[in-house]
Amino acid sequence: MEMKLLQQIHSPEDLRSLNNQQLEELTEEIRETIVDTVSRNGGHLASNLGAVELTLAMHLEFQSPKDSFVWDVGHQVYTHKLLTGRYEQFHTLRQNGGLSGFPNPEESDHDTFAAGHSGASIAAGYGLSVAKGLEGDPSYTIAVIGDGSFTGGLVYEALNNAGHENTKLIVVLNDNEMSISPNVGSLAMYLAGIRTNPAYYGFKEEVRNTLQKLPVVGDAAVHAIVQIKKELKDRLYSSNMFEDMGFNYMGPIDGHDLRALRYAFQSCKFIDGPVLLHVMTQKGKGYLFAEKEPSRFHGIGSFNKVTGESPKSGTNFSAEFGKALCTFAEQDEHIVAITAAMSLGTGLKEFSERFPDRFFDVGIAEEFAVTFAGGMAKGGLIPVFAVYSTFLQRAYDEIVHDVAMQDQKVVLAVDRAGFVGDDGRSHQGIFDLAFLRTIPNSVIYSPSTYKGVGQFLYRALYDDGKVIAVRYPRGQQGYIPDDFNQNTYDDYTVLDGEEYYTGTKLESRKPDACLVTFGSLFPEAAKARDELKEEGYRVRIIKLNKVWPINPGAVEAALDCSRVFFYEEGAKSGGIGESYGYQLLQDNFEGDYRYIAVDNTFVHHAKQDALRAEFGIDAASMVRDVKGGDHESE
Amino acid sequence: MEMKLLQQIHSPEDLRSLNNQQLEELTEEIRETIVDTVSRNGGHLASNLGAVELTLAMHLEFQSPKDSFVWDVGHQVYTHKLLTGRYEQFHTLRQNGGLSGFPNPEESDHDTFAAGHSGASIAAGYGLSVAKGLEGDPSYTIAVIGDGSFTGGLVYEALNNAGHENTKLIVVLNDNEMSISPNVGSLAMYLAGIRTNPAYYGFKEEVRNTLQKLPVVGDAAVHAIVQIKKELKDRLYSSNMFEDMGFNYMGPIDGHDLRALRYAFQSCKFIDGPVLLHVMTQKGKGYLFAEKEPSRFHGIGSFNKVTGESPKSGTNFSAEFGKALCTFAEQDEHIVAITAAMSLGTGLKEFSERFPDRFFDVGIAEEFAVTFAGGMAKGGLIPVFAVYSTFLQRAYDEIVHDVAMQDQKVVLAVDRAGFVGDDGRSHQGIFDLAFLRTIPNSVIYSPSTYKGVGQFLYRALYDDGKVIAVRYPRGQQGYIPDDFNQNTYDDYTVLDGEEYYTGTKLESRKPDACLVTFGSLFPEAAKARDELKEEGYRVRIIKLNKVWPINPGAVEAALDCSRVFFYEEGAKSGGIGESYGYQLLQDNFEGDYRYIAVDNTFVHHAKQDALRAEFGIDAASMVRDVKGGDHESE
Repeated sequence: MEMKLLQQIHSPEDLRSLNNQQLEELTEEIRETIVDTVSRNGGHLASNLGAVELTLAMHLEFQSPKDSFVWDVGHQVYTHKLLTGRYEQFHTLRQNGGLSGFPNPEESDHDTFAAGHSGASIAAGYGLSVAKGLEGDPSYTIAVIGDGSFTGGLVYEALNNAGHENTKLIVVLNDNEMSISPNVGSLAMYLAGIRTNPAYYGFKEEVRNTLQKLPVVGDAAVHAIVQIKKELKDRLYSSNMFEDMGFNYMGPIDGHDLRALRYAFQSCKFIDGPVLLHVMTQKGKGYLFAEKEPSRFHGIGSFNKVTGESPKSGTNFSAEFGKALCTFAEQDEHIVAITAAMSLGTGLKEFSERFPDRFFDVGIAEEFAVTFAGGMAKGGLIPVFAVYSTFLQRAYDEIVHDVAMQDQKVVLAVDRAGFVGDDGRSHQGIFDLAFLRTIPNSVIYSPSTYKGVGQFLYRALYDDGKVIAVRYPRGQQGYIPDDFNQNTYDDYTVLDGEEYYTGTKLESRKPDACLVTFGSLFPEAAKARDELKEEGYRVRIIKLNKVWPINPGAVEAALDCSRVFFYEEGAKSGGIGESYGYQLLQDNFEGDYRYIAVDNTFVHHAKQDALRAEFGIDAASMVRDVKGGDHESE
Repeated sequence: MEMKLLQQIHSPEDLRSLNNQQLEELTEEIRETIVDTVSRNGGHLASNLGAVELTLAMHLEFQSPKDSFVWDVGHQVYTHKLLTGRYEQFHTLRQNGGLSGFPNPEESDHDTFAAGHSGASIAAGYGLSVAKGLEGDPSYTIAVIGDGSFTGGLVYEALNNAGHENTKLIVVLNDNEMSISPNVGSLAMYLAGIRTNPAYYGFKEEVRNTLQKLPVVGDAAVHAIVQIKKELKDRLYSSNMFEDMGFNYMGPIDGHDLRALRYAFQSCKFIDGPVLLHVMTQKGKGYLFAEKEPSRFHGIGSFNKVTGESPKSGTNFSAEFGKALCTFAEQDEHIVAITAAMSLGTGLKEFSERFPDRFFDVGIAEEFAVTFAGGMAKGGLIPVFAVYSTFLQRAYDEIVHDVAMQDQKVVLAVDRAGFVGDDGRSHQGIFDLAFLRTIPNSVIYSPSTYKGVGQFLYRALYDDGKVIAVRYPRGQQGYIPDDFNQNTYDDYTVLDGEEYYTGTKLESRKPDACLVTFGSLFPEAAKARDELKEEGYRVRIIKLNKVWPINPGAVEAALDCSRVFFYEEGAKSGGIGESYGYQLLQDNFEGDYRYIAVDNTFVHHAKQDALRAEFGIDAASMVRDVKGGDHESE
């Protein structure tokens, strides 16, 4: 496909020579490029298609990177990437070594902040605008944030601070009436109220009529808009919530009308103090399948561009968790489930349909989810909060203060624990083990099998304990060797390879090495052991099922080994393997202990397998380690 | 002093026989008891004096513990304690083994949730009310929350979820026009707007007039109130922000008018769905000194009840931090300071006066504070966020995502690190080391001297690094031995006692033990060493100044010891000493390593010294450890 116009855009400056007709053609080329690339590489489709005109208008009316664009979450940034010199590399989107699917300052000066977690844009953008103010820099800072993010408290804290302050901050509320799933909560109703309010619609129509009579750019037009708005406001409105918070409110504007958007941005420049521009967009705009099924096309793997169909995928850990939870919930009406705007992603769809009274989608509000769960536990329920590992970070204090310190039991179903692959740095689930185990009386299970998810979820629901996490990886179950008893509910399992010496049990022969690991890396250890066995090595695997607290037996089981390797798909500092090492020392272990994990760094985007190889925790690395190869990755 | 009425109140039931005159006398006895006790034991005075009538009205109109009271932060709970069978023990307030200064379910069934961190009450209370709803329990849940807490996002998330839902949740907005310091941000202005709005004042006066004509309790009165409010609302108001969020708004009510409060609570019971009752109170009410200086009397040590004077206290770590920061800020205009509603407590008052443009009080919004700091750093500033260790827990994800992952430098001045003493469980600063060191490229300094705070703050400001914490204890500097070089900027200091063998350096004699520690425990180790020296022991102290990452030299310095003890005033799981042990193992250490810290528990209230003794980390414990005593505390 030839993208005649797009291939000529090497920087936003190149947009300025295009006429209206060409700009419209450009939006088509952008959409075609996005659909084409995402259909091949996977990615965030619906949100990106919704932000094409908005992004184009921003680049036409502001001067990035002098003016700073701050993208909330960052899953709407493809058009921005295409317009800022990255069209040629766009086919590498989300590939190892290629473009990130999210803003990344290392990729381009046009990407002000890295992103991934919701609600940070206004706070970070306001900080930047304050810094500019102190340093006499007159440029603008424009935060683009979806209505879904407005369900999170960080946004509110930022509005509360930025309101009334005299900074050049423009907040674009990109309102598509849903974030990932349709929005929940009072704010969604409130926004719906604004959208359907005749006063605002009147404004919008009136503006449109006025605009059509005016030249494309000009002070007169701008002043006319401001005047119309003021009159309408004075006449019909005392204020709205955003004005109560100290923002100049403009909108709602049609987010697919490039001219209206450009006028609106021009108007913003004439307003003193912070502006909230309310823009209505449609998720998936311009690609029929995504318009119809925006949730499915929010974050999606590769798909058939022509039919919109995704390849059939089998089950996965999220789905198996959801199934197991339904089974238990059927037996026990005290079980309730909570999600923070991720009912699809966390496998809770069936639960939400079968047990609607016991299902709570709280919006993108992980902090609330945990405290709310603590309250429900106090009321005698057994709350299960299903959440991605990376987003659970938001609720660290609430787990400490509103669950553990209350001596209440809350089950955390920690999805996407470990490497998540293509979404990259902001989404990798590498901290949950390290931060959860700092919390008094926390318990962490990390099964490796679908069956294990159900078994250890059952333990979490009914064993003693307070903060109890069951964590499982993104995607599919890996290789499970025959000698692993899948029916176990035990804290740990030792596969010491004795069955390979049937008949002539070689008790005198110690293992050549002991591999200690859990979760997603057990399949790697099993593969490594099998391969090493072929070459005559005897390898013992100590598989933790309950990874915290570590059962002392799981440490004792390694004491007779002269070489013990611990592999962890998570942060090394504070990780489980560090405590395992400390406990080995307490037990007077005298051999060699090596702990291989993610050492003091963030993890870029790449397939999970590629990342495991890179960080030295895949089967091949384990084989090398046992054979005494070099250990660069350690 | 005899408290004639109060001593007869063994449970809220006993209140019901009191007439209006007696209830008024009771409020006086309550205030007298609170002032008297706090003047001796220290505590939260101003907020408790403000909530006397409110609490009394709640206990008169609801039936605790069947109806659940949820106190936000919990520093207004003394009247509640006095009315729920704890008058006799009240003199033990905040004493070791005595009553906690905060709600504590272990103390009484009337204390629904433990508290301490701001903004959790609505979320937890809503969770509880949902559980009640599911289980058919018709009782009420009443969350009492100050206007200061409304600057935090968790409140907003909770309102967004609880609004429009049909639960028996009553939120009492206890509005004293300031939290700890006068409120900042747009919400404060918004509340001021409501307070001074003639419509609401009109309502209030009209209600009062009506009430005076009606019997004390009765449906008629209630319906009259509701009707008046409705008419006023219809006539003058479209809605306010709380109504936009789906709450039935009532108020503002005079929070010191017991009759008005009782009527209001009665009215609440006739309203379907969640209610927000806006109550105006005065901090320090009834004690002139506290009315005049509510900030000083918020949390206060013992004071002279008659004169209101506090004993002169010398300097402390917070003050020394504030002084040092001012010195550096004078030299470097890029330095900015942030506090989350704790400008007094964190020693930033002078900074705020000398550099008002570079000082930011963001309200009780630690999450925002960190993301905001990340944005300012991106804009070229050097942000210093001064925050209590316990409250920094709130911002774990923001440190990860909006600072570390952005590769920006933010300095965290972590105050009240370690035991805080009388405030107890929710306030102990025992997790910061464990959670901060999970974050890539984090650096943590933990000086033991006032001078060291300045020195390591300087390193934090200008050394390489991203997330850089300087942490220091609550209170005063401890014993610093003469052989410690206070001018050091080094990562660690070894005091190996050689100077005690002047002239005849006994190189052949290894230390009997090595004590590794830092921060507030260095004085303890120094005292232990001095005492042990008297008895002929040679003890080496390894004092970490930079506690993370641990300088390898600080581990090597212990390798020749046969017994190494690591003392830490913080959580053991994930603590610094665990990593130190792991690193000893890596270095093939063959001696005995003991790590003594807070093992898998929360820490109750008691003086810091008493807690150090209890957890086995004071000088006496160290002496016992070296001499080979028992190690129960380990």
